[in-house]
Amino acid sequence: MNYNLLKGKRGIIFGALNDMSIAWKVAERCVEEGATITLTNAPAAVRMGQTNELGAKLNAEVIPADATNIEDLENLFARSMEILGGKIDFVLHSIGMSPNVRKKRSYDDIDYDLLEKTLDISAISFHKMLQVAKKMDAIAEGGSVIALSYIAAQRTFCGYNDMADAKSLLESIARSFGYIYGKDKGVRINTISQSPTVTTAGSGVNGMNHLLDFSNKMAPLGNADANDCADYCIVMFSDLTRKVTMQNLFNDGGFSSMGMSEAAIETVIK
Amino acid sequence: MNYNLLKGKRGIIFGALNDMSIAWKVAERCVEEGATITLTNAPAAVRMGQTNELGAKLNAEVIPADATNIEDLENLFARSMEILGGKIDFVLHSIGMSPNVRKKRSYDDIDYDLLEKTLDISAISFHKMLQVAKKMDAIAEGGSVIALSYIAAQRTFCGYNDMADAKSLLESIARSFGYIYGKDKGVRINTISQSPTVTTAGSGVNGMNHLLDFSNKMAPLGNADANDCADYCIVMFSDLTRKVTMQNLFNDGGFSSMGMSEAAIETVIK
Amino acid sequence: MNYNLLKGKRGIIFGALNDMSIAWKVAERCVEEGATITLTNAPAAVRMGQTNELGAKLNAEVIPADATNIEDLENLFARSMEILGGKIDFVLHSIGMSPNVRKKRSYDDIDYDLLEKTLDISAISFHKMLQVAKKMDAIAEGGSVIALSYIAAQRTFCGYNDMADAKSLLESIARSFGYIYGKDKGVRINTISQSPTVTTAGSGVNGMNHLLDFSNKMAPLGNADANDCADYCIVMFSDLTRKVTMQNLFNDGGFSSMGMSEAAIETVIK
Amino acid sequence: MNYNLLKGKRGIIFGALNDMSIAWKVAERCVEEGATITLTNAPAAVRMGQTNELGAKLNAEVIPADATNIEDLENLFARSMEILGGKIDFVLHSIGMSPNVRKKRSYDDIDYDLLEKTLDISAISFHKMLQVAKKMDAIAEGGSVIALSYIAAQRTFCGYNDMADAKSLLESIARSFGYIYGKDKGVRINTISQSPTVTTAGSGVNGMNHLLDFSNKMAPLGNADANDCADYCIVMFSDLTRKVTMQNLFNDGGFSSMGMSEAAIETVIK
Repeated sequence: MNYNLLKGKRGIIFGALNDMSIAWKVAERCVEEGATITLTNAPAAVRMGQTNELGAKLNAEVIPADATNIEDLENLFARSMEILGGKIDFVLHSIGMSPNVRKKRSYDDIDYDLLEKTLDISAISFHKMLQVAKKMDAIAEGGSVIALSYIAAQRTFCGYNDMADAKSLLESIARSFGYIYGKDKGVRINTISQSPTVTTAGSGVNGMNHLLDFSNKMAPLGNADANDCADYCIVMFSDLTRKVTMQNLFNDGGFSSMGMSEAAIETVIK
Repeated sequence: MNYNLLKGKRGIIFGALNDMSIAWKVAERCVEEGATITLTNAPAAVRMGQTNELGAKLNAEVIPADATNIEDLENLFARSMEILGGKIDFVLHSIGMSPNVRKKRSYDDIDYDLLEKTLDISAISFHKMLQVAKKMDAIAEGGSVIALSYIAAQRTFCGYNDMADAKSLLESIARSFGYIYGKDKGVRINTISQSPTVTTAGSGVNGMNHLLDFSNKMAPLGNADANDCADYCIVMFSDLTRKVTMQNLFNDGGFSSMGMSEAAIETVIK
Repeated sequence: MNYNLLKGKRGIIFGALNDMSIAWKVAERCVEEGATITLTNAPAAVRMGQTNELGAKLNAEVIPADATNIEDLENLFARSMEILGGKIDFVLHSIGMSPNVRKKRSYDDIDYDLLEKTLDISAISFHKMLQVAKKMDAIAEGGSVIALSYIAAQRTFCGYNDMADAKSLLESIARSFGYIYGKDKGVRINTISQSPTVTTAGSGVNGMNHLLDFSNKMAPLGNADANDCADYCIVMFSDLTRKVTMQNLFNDGGFSSMGMSEAAIETVIK
Repeated sequence: MNYNLLKGKRGIIFGALNDMSIAWKVAERCVEEGATITLTNAPAAVRMGQTNELGAKLNAEVIPADATNIEDLENLFARSMEILGGKIDFVLHSIGMSPNVRKKRSYDDIDYDLLEKTLDISAISFHKMLQVAKKMDAIAEGGSVIALSYIAAQRTFCGYNDMADAKSLLESIARSFGYIYGKDKGVRINTISQSPTVTTAGSGVNGMNHLLDFSNKMAPLGNADANDCADYCIVMFSDLTRKVTMQNLFNDGGFSSMGMSEAAIETVIK
């Protein structure tokens, strides 16, 4: 389905690694809806993943950038404006990685250098991207920025480890910067808190399959998948949500408002 | 702007009294986006307001109904399905009225018969509408229901009186029924918590102008108006938000995430 | 253990039916901590329950009162001040009952007269009690009022039915009245949101045992019981929490901040 | 007033710089309530502040420690257990500092090395302290840990800058570690979100006086001060709140539940 919701808009999509990535689906839907975009990912991810294939398919230039590196971000915005022919209307930040999770450090035995990396990659990169964009005045008046989050920012999920803290920090940055970018330039900044989703990034979290299943049983509409998330991003990038900012928006089939469902309690009883 | 977001969809809009009503703008936008709708309001409101004019303009039948009366609601859904030619895809509940506010009873001197009326009109009517619809299986699989709320459901605003309690109850009903209607029929139910808006209903609240002004200064994007709300409703009625349910969605320029803005503190300092 | 936290204070405890009642434990602890109290319950509950035994044990007068009846509440406060010799320092509201739950009406088939009763008994009674007290100036400066709530006010639990809506309304009333009673008389009003607890009232809720068990596995400290709740009430009635008001305080072993625990996911996996 | 609430308990208080510090009052109240404690602060703060005077007055050893340094924290716990004669029952973390605020960097022009420091000092130090304590098994079963926070963790306050993000991270750490320390050792971890308070630390935030005044007018009970906070800490360290964990507890006169008060709107109108 195509509504031309993003006709004439210019966007940057971070984090499309392969076709399991949420960012991959978002990029596809943005182009379907009439946007022109650039794609970006860490240089190593670009080499190893399929971002270039997606770029070819969507006619979108791939600009490798380490999202924790200011110069890379400056280059990304400069090149994107040049290629797309003007200021950027929307940005998706879909970046998260915890070296502590990867190395199976438990939360009461984390390595603090790795925690610094978790926070820098998964949360502070969002601030860096926004600060760079604002200094370059690279986002158009009324532009829309989305970062992907998870409900672990509000509630503790065993195994989610320091990614929970990173997501809390990420959502705080969205609010803090949302205020400043909103009042100065009318740019809105929100996070979408998505159902647990099978992605290359998500697959490192312990017991992910059981969590997905439980979450799916708890949510009356079941888990939202990457396509659902892409649709929600389109809506948030469009001109139809111009006064929505500094919000954390749950796209989770109702999970966040559930205490106990019949389907979930049946699993428990068995 | 028209995206055909609601092409082929059938809807019912409660509460379009006159062109200051949020529901009025929502009705207009729904039709612009390709929906066919019916309009409803309390019989007295239909007589005294301009609902019939809107109906004529939008080619939408006006079906008077007391939203607290089960038979009226049954008739409303039956007639709407008949006229529109099938199950209903979306419903807007924009109904709120406090006789205690109207009679200027302070919150520590409310009349309990009037409180019962406040709750019945402003919140329980939402349950009645949903229960009637579900029993009649009147809402299509994947349908979307929205009720309008206000942040007084979470935080106390002087003068808002028992409407605050009504909005809390309303949001709770949205969650409670959202679970059941979601799991059984895939219907999503959400509330949109809108900036204070100058409407005939809102004008009864004490000091409304000062509140509007303060709220506008606090919100980095300023208050959302009725047109903004209509756009957000369109999005929530569309197929692009199919996994969003049981949520309270702030459409308020960022107000709900603000503690203090520069513009607001300047007002305080002067 | 006795700390004399409530030495010289006068209180009223609603809802001590039998020794399974949370209010029963609260009454005992209040007296242990040096308070003098009166007990109250609905006349039928007083006749059928063991409130009189508790009164005899604690040397506390039992004053039957229908909490939904203004005159009964007026008499309750007048008599309590007379017996206890001054204004009231603290009140516990522990009242909740849903005739819809008792009659096993599902949430999409509730009876609206019964819903009105649920709300009147479980939530509006709290407003009535506060309004009566404020009009009589019956609560001392710096006094503390607590109502017992449950997390169903925020999240949907299957089977909890219209009690969820009643608890949302109750918590809203605590905020709304907390503002007015706070600014006018320095009285603080809070709700304690307690773990599911085996009480005569709670036993009507469907699948209560499974919920208790799941909740206990989810909460890192396990469920809080009636004694834990009594301790928390003591603290909230004492002079040590004089600036805490309009809050909903979770006493639940951490449940409210959990998304998934190891113990709970193990149950799911088996 | 003294209730012996902490009789026989051993505690560590971080952050008592001078008699304006909240931690100073907490330390005094802990000792009044029967606890024996050690005091700690950064070595430079110990040299320049009055921590040693407080130590002398309370008969409490001062153990300088950089809260971001693991060895310092290990030494702190080892020495404290040695001096106090057993495991630690309670800990107060009252540490917060933003070099970006000090250097008047605006939030859209922050220095990332300084942000790293803000987060390390104000939030990650809490994790370090907890991880060190857990590895050493230094906190007694049923122990209680409190960190001081501020509502900027949830809502944006102009001028609060990256301290808002630090407080969000701090509260997330309290939840994440609260789960693990709770299930493993029955230790509860909470944050107290205090009214803005005139302290040496707070005085660096822009427009602090106006914020204090506005906040005081918004809160029906007025701002909570350092003494109120000390009382609340006592309660949370005591055995009367043993099932309360992973919570953020507002001690703010009701501010957090307010949208608009009469007193505040009057300021705006003038």
